[in-house]
Amino acid sequence: MTVPPESQQIRISEKDLQHFCEQIFIKYGVSKEDARVTTEVLVIADLRGIESHGVARLPRYVTGLREGYIHPVYNGRTIKETKATAVIDAGQSLGQVAGRKGMELAIRKARETAVGVVTVRNSNHFGIAGYYAMMALEHDLIGMCMTNAAPLVVPTFGRTAVLGTNPISLVAPATKEKPFVLDMATSVVPRGKLEVLDRAGKKMPFGWAVDETGKGTTDPARVLAAMAKRLGGGLLPLGGEGEEFSGHKGYGLALMVDVLCGVLSGAATGLNIYADEKRPDVGHFFMVIDPAAFRPLDEFKHEMDRLARELKDSPKAQGQSRIYVHGEKSYARMERYRREGVPIGPKVAENLKKIGKESGVPWPIS
Amino acid sequence: MTVPPESQQIRISEKDLQHFCEQIFIKYGVSKEDARVTTEVLVIADLRGIESHGVARLPRYVTGLREGYIHPVYNGRTIKETKATAVIDAGQSLGQVAGRKGMELAIRKARETAVGVVTVRNSNHFGIAGYYAMMALEHDLIGMCMTNAAPLVVPTFGRTAVLGTNPISLVAPATKEKPFVLDMATSVVPRGKLEVLDRAGKKMPFGWAVDETGKGTTDPARVLAAMAKRLGGGLLPLGGEGEEFSGHKGYGLALMVDVLCGVLSGAATGLNIYADEKRPDVGHFFMVIDPAAFRPLDEFKHEMDRLARELKDSPKAQGQSRIYVHGEKSYARMERYRREGVPIGPKVAENLKKIGKESGVPWPIS
Repeated sequence: MTVPPESQQIRISEKDLQHFCEQIFIKYGVSKEDARVTTEVLVIADLRGIESHGVARLPRYVTGLREGYIHPVYNGRTIKETKATAVIDAGQSLGQVAGRKGMELAIRKARETAVGVVTVRNSNHFGIAGYYAMMALEHDLIGMCMTNAAPLVVPTFGRTAVLGTNPISLVAPATKEKPFVLDMATSVVPRGKLEVLDRAGKKMPFGWAVDETGKGTTDPARVLAAMAKRLGGGLLPLGGEGEEFSGHKGYGLALMVDVLCGVLSGAATGLNIYADEKRPDVGHFFMVIDPAAFRPLDEFKHEMDRLARELKDSPKAQGQSRIYVHGEKSYARMERYRREGVPIGPKVAENLKKIGKESGVPWPIS
Repeated sequence: MTVPPESQQIRISEKDLQHFCEQIFIKYGVSKEDARVTTEVLVIADLRGIESHGVARLPRYVTGLREGYIHPVYNGRTIKETKATAVIDAGQSLGQVAGRKGMELAIRKARETAVGVVTVRNSNHFGIAGYYAMMALEHDLIGMCMTNAAPLVVPTFGRTAVLGTNPISLVAPATKEKPFVLDMATSVVPRGKLEVLDRAGKKMPFGWAVDETGKGTTDPARVLAAMAKRLGGGLLPLGGEGEEFSGHKGYGLALMVDVLCGVLSGAATGLNIYADEKRPDVGHFFMVIDPAAFRPLDEFKHEMDRLARELKDSPKAQGQSRIYVHGEKSYARMERYRREGVPIGPKVAENLKKIGKESGVPWPIS
């Protein structure tokens, strides 16, 4: 999304990037293991091509640690539990650490009870939802993960953002094919896409966002300015403006995510998320299902292969050479970036270098 | 969707409509109770304004019963079960009867284990997914339901339909506000919308469907003809053509539904659904979560109210007077139709009358 032309990017090895970010977190009081996990979530986002949720966000987490609304030491606790479910109060810990604990618990429950549902409240931004859902793959389980987020998305017929980009991730293992990895925001596009076009002085298509009057616009600068000043405007839910292309469905999915992450866990919802500067109170939802409770595992995985191949082998639209199954592009990108280094934009590199200097952690590239 | 001008519609009381359809099913060997359930699913679709899945479909179910691929007597059996999960082989019973059994079992499991996940294979078209999800409301539970369906939706960059309109329904109880009832196909629009415009000789917007070359078109007749002749073309997934408006997300949701309904249950998936004329092998997914396992029930329901009100009270787009929460419109319609009678188009009424005549069941309106 926010990738500048390749010529301006620098390349950094996964190992160096991981080490640098880990050291930063450690400097702010995070344990070695929690620093490793938190960094891994960010670096995997970059490796998969979701730069908006990668190391570019490190400064925001550092701000949270400095200002105290992110606690460096994990102090979450399970406050309600059954064989198949649990609620964790994350105690304002790092969202990535709380997210990993939540998904680990959901996996444990699914291994014992065939299904595990864990919700987390009082957490922070946790990076990409796909990271946690993918944790299920090591155990040949189906993983699902959602999170609510700060309001950026305008409900159908509204003109101010009330819901977050509230992502949904569902992951299922296959055999010969790559696992199915759906990891999608429920908005048409992320805010980052508007920022890229704005910086380039370009227009955006109608149907991505509305201005402060609630009407569609092609001017990203207007939307971003209105949002920054809290005058209204925001991203559109998947399906776009009004009901002609079913924008109310994307709005419904975003609301479903807030029900499962916010209302069910007891976290903040809607406008209350990040409303209190001292307590963002983000909520997450984790679900794990054991396919072997439904049919023999190898049957399940082979049928995943068959369905993926059927989609990929189906006739292509004029001018198109390939149909993808979700996750494929990201796995290919990950392999390439692990070989060639992770691309980092000059602005992001500069910010990281600055944070490194402030924290006494040397940036590994001269 | 398929409603003709009000002047041409007839109105029939819910009771008369229910009784008429029940009698038809009974004539084809369906038990009184199963006829009641199957009819109820259809009539509630009409009451909620989803005419495409209402009594207009009765002829198709009768065809199934006549041709034998729908068995009139329920002969489903649970083939694998844990405390929290089950798989039912529906034995080609009526989809509505199998659907109700599946959801009843998921509810029972959720009441005992806090979560219940039930998948159904070897079933038939079951009507609206929302009916089953809403069954959870009587027990103050969260209900979720999905089904796969005959291929009508073209994957991103493809030109033939491989996936169904694969709906997702999620329902959660509230207190003062209406329950949240999301019930949405994962395509931009249903095929019925193209048929309505085609009959009126009108164009459709770009972004609803692609023709047999896989390119967007405004000509519904061309798409419908190509689909009927199996030349290609089909509905677009939510988000539209290509990736500009994130059509790949709607495609991913449709595929997620097929993974959970088809692959997980052992039903047909993708092109195999309805491929065998003698065995449609549709698959369903039911999930129930007990909110009381996560937080006190009244807290949950009050927070559902608060979130709904926050959305509805938020500022409206220019020219709009109201923001809806999912389910509200349908509840209002249901109340009105229960008072004023269910509107039935002249074509649908004619078809029902004809089936009544063939089966010896008098149509209640002269």
